[in-house]
Amino acid sequence: MEDEEKIVDTLWELLKSKQYTRLKEILAEMNPADVAEICNDLDEQTLPLIFRLLPKDSAADAFVEMDSDTQETLLRAFSDTELKQVVNELYADDAVDLIEEMPANVVKRILALASPSKRKDINELLKYPENSAGSIMTTEFVYLRENWTVGESIAFIRRSGLNKETIYICYITSSGRLIGWISVKDLLLAPSDDTVISEIMEENVISVNALEDKEEVAKLLSRYNFIAMPVTDSENRLVGIVTFDDAMDVIEEETTEDLSIMSAQTPMEKTYLKSTPFEFFTHRIPWLAIMMISATFTGIIISGFENALAANVLLTAFIPMLMDTGGNSGSQSSVTIIRALSLGEIEFSDLPHVVVKEFLTALMCGLALGCICMLKMFLIDRLLLNNPELTLSMMLVVSSSLCVTVLVAKILGGTLPLIAKKLGADPAVMSSPLITTCVDAISLIVYFSIAKSVLF
Amino acid sequence: MEDEEKIVDTLWELLKSKQYTRLKEILAEMNPADVAEICNDLDEQTLPLIFRLLPKDSAADAFVEMDSDTQETLLRAFSDTELKQVVNELYADDAVDLIEEMPANVVKRILALASPSKRKDINELLKYPENSAGSIMTTEFVYLRENWTVGESIAFIRRSGLNKETIYICYITSSGRLIGWISVKDLLLAPSDDTVISEIMEENVISVNALEDKEEVAKLLSRYNFIAMPVTDSENRLVGIVTFDDAMDVIEEETTEDLSIMSAQTPMEKTYLKSTPFEFFTHRIPWLAIMMISATFTGIIISGFENALAANVLLTAFIPMLMDTGGNSGSQSSVTIIRALSLGEIEFSDLPHVVVKEFLTALMCGLALGCICMLKMFLIDRLLLNNPELTLSMMLVVSSSLCVTVLVAKILGGTLPLIAKKLGADPAVMSSPLITTCVDAISLIVYFSIAKSVLF
Repeated sequence: MEDEEKIVDTLWELLKSKQYTRLKEILAEMNPADVAEICNDLDEQTLPLIFRLLPKDSAADAFVEMDSDTQETLLRAFSDTELKQVVNELYADDAVDLIEEMPANVVKRILALASPSKRKDINELLKYPENSAGSIMTTEFVYLRENWTVGESIAFIRRSGLNKETIYICYITSSGRLIGWISVKDLLLAPSDDTVISEIMEENVISVNALEDKEEVAKLLSRYNFIAMPVTDSENRLVGIVTFDDAMDVIEEETTEDLSIMSAQTPMEKTYLKSTPFEFFTHRIPWLAIMMISATFTGIIISGFENALAANVLLTAFIPMLMDTGGNSGSQSSVTIIRALSLGEIEFSDLPHVVVKEFLTALMCGLALGCICMLKMFLIDRLLLNNPELTLSMMLVVSSSLCVTVLVAKILGGTLPLIAKKLGADPAVMSSPLITTCVDAISLIVYFSIAKSVLF
Repeated sequence: MEDEEKIVDTLWELLKSKQYTRLKEILAEMNPADVAEICNDLDEQTLPLIFRLLPKDSAADAFVEMDSDTQETLLRAFSDTELKQVVNELYADDAVDLIEEMPANVVKRILALASPSKRKDINELLKYPENSAGSIMTTEFVYLRENWTVGESIAFIRRSGLNKETIYICYITSSGRLIGWISVKDLLLAPSDDTVISEIMEENVISVNALEDKEEVAKLLSRYNFIAMPVTDSENRLVGIVTFDDAMDVIEEETTEDLSIMSAQTPMEKTYLKSTPFEFFTHRIPWLAIMMISATFTGIIISGFENALAANVLLTAFIPMLMDTGGNSGSQSSVTIIRALSLGEIEFSDLPHVVVKEFLTALMCGLALGCICMLKMFLIDRLLLNNPELTLSMMLVVSSSLCVTVLVAKILGGTLPLIAKKLGADPAVMSSPLITTCVDAISLIVYFSIAKSVLF
C-alpha cells in the first residue's frame, strides 16, 4: 500500500513535468493489476492519457482488472481504432463481463467494432443465463485429437497457443464430444514424442454443464485443484472452460454477497469507497424496516404482560440480557450451519443430525449459562450492587428462562438455514438478524410465562 | 452427492462379495478428491483395505485430500514400507501439513521413514512460523538459468519436471537470488528454440517474504492471477513457491475462521459433522458468557430508570424493537467494513471517509425508520391494536430514540473494526455480537433520557 502511494506520487510528478518517456518505462515494468488499481483513482482527463502510454500487450490485461466505471470512462474516451484494439485483445469471457456492466450505447459500439470471430464468441457466451458456468467460461482453449502424437501435439500448441486463455490443460474431443484431457506437464514429461495422445490422456473427465451455477463450478474446481474446468452442453459437447483465476474471483464475490445477506443488506456491486451513502441507504433500509415492523410482536407480548411488569419492574432489567444471549446463541448456530452448507459439508438430509447436535450443544451451553447467570446475579447484582429486590426465586426465573432461550435459539439457528435451502431460498437469509427477531419473541414469552407462574 | 452415494453403495457391495479386481478398476477411474471423500466415511477396518487397492500414483493424491483423523487412522494401520512409500510420494508442503496435524509418535515415524532429501525439505519448511507463507510453500519447483536457450530450458523441464509441484512457472536465479520468471506458455510460444531466456524472461518479479501472513499471500496470488507465487527470504533468495490451489484452500479456511469470529465463536479445525457437541460447547460458551455478563450494564441502566418505567409500563414494550434495530444497523455497517478491510478496499487512513459515509447513510436510515415507525405506531399500535395509552408524545419519544440509536450504531459499526485493525486485533471481532452489546447500552440511555425529558 505504501509502495503504491509512492509510485502514484512519482507518476503524478512525471505527468505534470510531461516526462512521458520515463512514465512509459515505469508503466511498462508494472504488473497490469497494479496499473489498474492506480487507474481506478485517476480523473477523467488523466486516465486516457496514462492508458495510452501502456505497452499494447499489458493494456488489455490492465483494462480487464479495472473497476467498471473506470472502464466506462475509458471506453467513452477511446477513438474507434483504440476501442477496436482493446476489445479484440480481450478474451471472450472478459469481453462478456464488460458488456454485462456497460450501458446500452457503449455495448453497441463494442459489438460493432469487435472482429467477426470475436463477436461470434461473445454472442455465444451472452446466451447463457447470469450466474451460470456458461456466463463465466471462455471459448479460447486448446483442442487436441486422440490420434495425434505427443510431438505433433506440442508442435500444435506452439503454433496455436497464443490466443488461448490457458494452454496448460488441453482437451481431446471426438465429433465435438469431450472424451479426455491431458496437461502440458504430462505432454512434456511423456516417455517419447511418438507416444499417441489416446494412450496417455485422462479419460475420466470431470466436467460441468454450462447451465450449472457458477458458484458450484468454482467450488468443484477448488475441490479438484484444477487449473481449468471443462464446460459441456447437454449433449456432452465441449463448449468452454472456466479457469482457476475466474473461479477465485467468483468465490470472492459470492463470499461478499453472502456476508451482505447475512447482515441483512441487499448485495452491492461496487466497492465501499465508490458507493454513495444513498446507495447504502437503499440497500440497507428495506431490511431494517421489515425487521422493525416485525418487532411489533415483541411489543404485543410485553403489553400482554403489562400487569406483571408493573408489579415487578426489576423483571424489565433482564430483558436485554435474555434477548441478546438468545440472539448470540442463535447466530452462532445459524452462521455455522450456513457455512457448512456453503462448503458442502452438510445437506438437508443431515437435518436430524443437526437437530441432535445443536440440542446437545444448546443443553450444555444453556445449563452452563444458567449457572453462570445465577452466580453473576448473586455476586454482582445482589452483593456488589446491593439490590435486595433480587430474590432467589427471581434469580431462578431469569436463569431458567435463559436456559430455555438458548435451547430454542440454537435449534432454530441450526434448522432454519437447512429448511431455507430445502425450499430453494438462500440459507444466508436465515442468519442472525432474522433469527434474532424470532428468538426475541419466543424468549419473552418463555420469560414472562415462567415469571408469572413462579412469582405471582 | 447422489452419484457419490451410488458409488459408495457399489463399492460396499463389491467389498462384501470380495470382488477386489472390479473394485480396483473403479477406484482407479475415480478422481483422488472423490476417493478421499469416500475414505473419510469408512470404518477403521475397511479404510486400509480400500486404500491398498488404489493405484500408486493416485494413492498419495487421495491421502493428501483426506481429513486428518482419516489420515491418522491410515498411518497407524500402515506397515513401515507402506508409510515410506506414501510419505516419499508427498510434496514437501503436504508432508508438513500432515506433520502439523499428527500426534508426536506418528510424526516421529514419518520423519524416520522419509528419504534423507525429503526429510531435509520437511525440516526446512517446519522452521517457518504457523500461518506464514513459508509454512504453506513447497520447495519443489523449476529453476532455469538466464543464459540457457528456450530449447535447453524445455529439454531441462522434460528431464527434471516429474517431481515438481508445478512446472508452468519457472524461476530464474543468479547466485540464489530471484532475478526473473517465465511461464511454460512463453517458453513454448517463443519465436525460436535458440532464444536466450534472459531476453524473454519477466524481470519484474512480484514475490513475498517467507514470513508474510499466508492470507496476504493468497490474496496477492488472487489479485495477480498467478499460478504460483515465489517466496523469498530476507535476502531475496528464492526459497519456495505457493501454488494457486493451496492459496484457494487458505482463502476458504480464512473465510470460515472469520465467520466463526464474527458470530462470536472460537474457530474449529474439524468439519461440522465430525465435531462433537462438547467441542461446540467449548468453542461457544466463553463468548456467550462474556457477553451475558457484560449485559449487566443494560440491567443497571434499566434499574436506574425504574421509576420512569413503573409510571409508564408501555415504555418497556418498545425496548426490544429499539435494541434490535440498533443491533441490525450496527451489524450492517460492521460487516460491510470488515469485508472491505479483508478485501483490501479500505485501510485505517480511510477512517474519516468511513465516518462521513456511515454518518450520512445512518442519517437517511434513521430519519426514514423514524418516519416509518411513527406511521407503524399510528396505524398498527394505535388504530389496529387500539392502544389509547400510546400518545403522540410517546410516539415521538420512540421515533426520535430510534433515529439516534441508528446513528450511533452505524458510526460504531463503521469505526470499531477499523480501530481494531489499527490496534493489531482481528477486525472480525468487532462484528455484530460485540457491537450489539455496546449499542444496547447506548440506545437504552438515549431512550430513557428522551422519555424522561418529554414525558415527565
